Amino acid sequence: MKVIELHKSVTDSNDRDADRLRAEMKKAGVLLINLMSSPGSGKTTLLGATIKGMPDTRIAVLEADIDSAVDAEKIASWGARAIQVHTDGMCHMDAGMTREGLEGMGYEGVDLAVLENIGNLICPAEFDTGAGLNVMILSITEGDDKPLKYPLMFETSDALVISKIDALPYFNFDMEKCVERARRLNPDIKVFPLSAKTGEGMQAWTDYLHQEIRNWRENG
Amino acid sequence: MKVIELHKSVTDSNDRDADRLRAEMKKAGVLLINLMSSPGSGKTTLLGATIKGMPDTRIAVLEADIDSAVDAEKIASWGARAIQVHTDGMCHMDAGMTREGLEGMGYEGVDLAVLENIGNLICPAEFDTGAGLNVMILSITEGDDKPLKYPLMFETSDALVISKIDALPYFNFDMEKCVERARRLNPDIKVFPLSAKTGEGMQAWTDYLHQEIRNWRENG
Repeated sequence: MKVIELHKSVTDSNDRDADRLRAEMKKAGVLLINLMSSPGSGKTTLLGATIKGMPDTRIAVLEADIDSAVDAEKIASWGARAIQVHTDGMCHMDAGMTREGLEGMGYEGVDLAVLENIGNLICPAEFDTGAGLNVMILSITEGDDKPLKYPLMFETSDALVISKIDALPYFNFDMEKCVERARRLNPDIKVFPLSAKTGEGMQAWTDYLHQEIRNWRENG
Repeated sequence: MKVIELHKSVTDSNDRDADRLRAEMKKAGVLLINLMSSPGSGKTTLLGATIKGMPDTRIAVLEADIDSAVDAEKIASWGARAIQVHTDGMCHMDAGMTREGLEGMGYEGVDLAVLENIGNLICPAEFDTGAGLNVMILSITEGDDKPLKYPLMFETSDALVISKIDALPYFNFDMEKCVERARRLNPDIKVFPLSAKTGEGMQAWTDYLHQEIRNWRENG
């Protein structure tokens, strides 16, 4: 398993770097998704189910962590291209770090590249990574009040995956209230309640990804 | 509900500020706990059960959030002194911010002051808040691999509360493996598996807090 040790980007123009990376990915025809969430919300499990549910899509995963390579090893064992990047203790990925990871991994022939960002609902929302699509996951075990407490993450996400819905009977989570709170911050956010464990809701999620890959390529 | 809007401390000597705050709290006989975890791990619910389980202990809570005052309102409704502090988008509390919050709330006559830090497993571990005790919560819904991925948080914590154990039958969480991973990083860490919902494990946790309050006052 390839592991890249990253350090803080030397440039202070992250937004410009992000726009440049986005343009290059557009040209390469690769949709880059920035996947953000709390620790333990099920990012890697969702990726596993997504890889399995999209057999004709060539998926590559950039696993960002402060330490360990457990997630990238899992992803590779599921048959997708994967690389582990370590962030030198940093709490988020920026565009320069994302570029370094993507170039280290190689993305030729890839349809969908996923940056699994550091588990953190705060800092990752503040840095444009150059992704074409920002997606956040909220696990139902975290509670329906999270839009009230971490508004920027909900504001900057194009899609909200509400994960672990198989556990709804055991938790006090009000789906309607959560979605309403998210929409108050971001009226256009797409919402996908699902369980990667049982498969419920996965079809709508993979349909959305297929559509977004097509849009990315067609709207040049 | 009193809400204080905090801004980044002007000083760059956080460690010195933290030591000074710790000394003042020692003199005042108030044990300050820095409570850290991911978003949604159950910090506020644990505090509710702790307040209820320690009726003779005067508890005050400093609720740090990026936005909203929902947690402080809950805590106040449970009969404890509480203040909400907003961190101006910042992902952690430092010693200067903690002092400002404590002074805004007032801590005369308090036995135990709890700083409910921002929900984040990364940045809060990097900043000494001046607390006498660092406690982290890991919810069993987050997975037993978290010590591998967020090592600094486990290294800097005196105690690890493993929360939501009532949900163990529905999640794939290996308690033994998790504790072993935490102890490999921090052999002295105290571990408290509990459910604030059912009360299981709460007695050991409140016994520990009683003992730590006594130690704090006696070892002047």
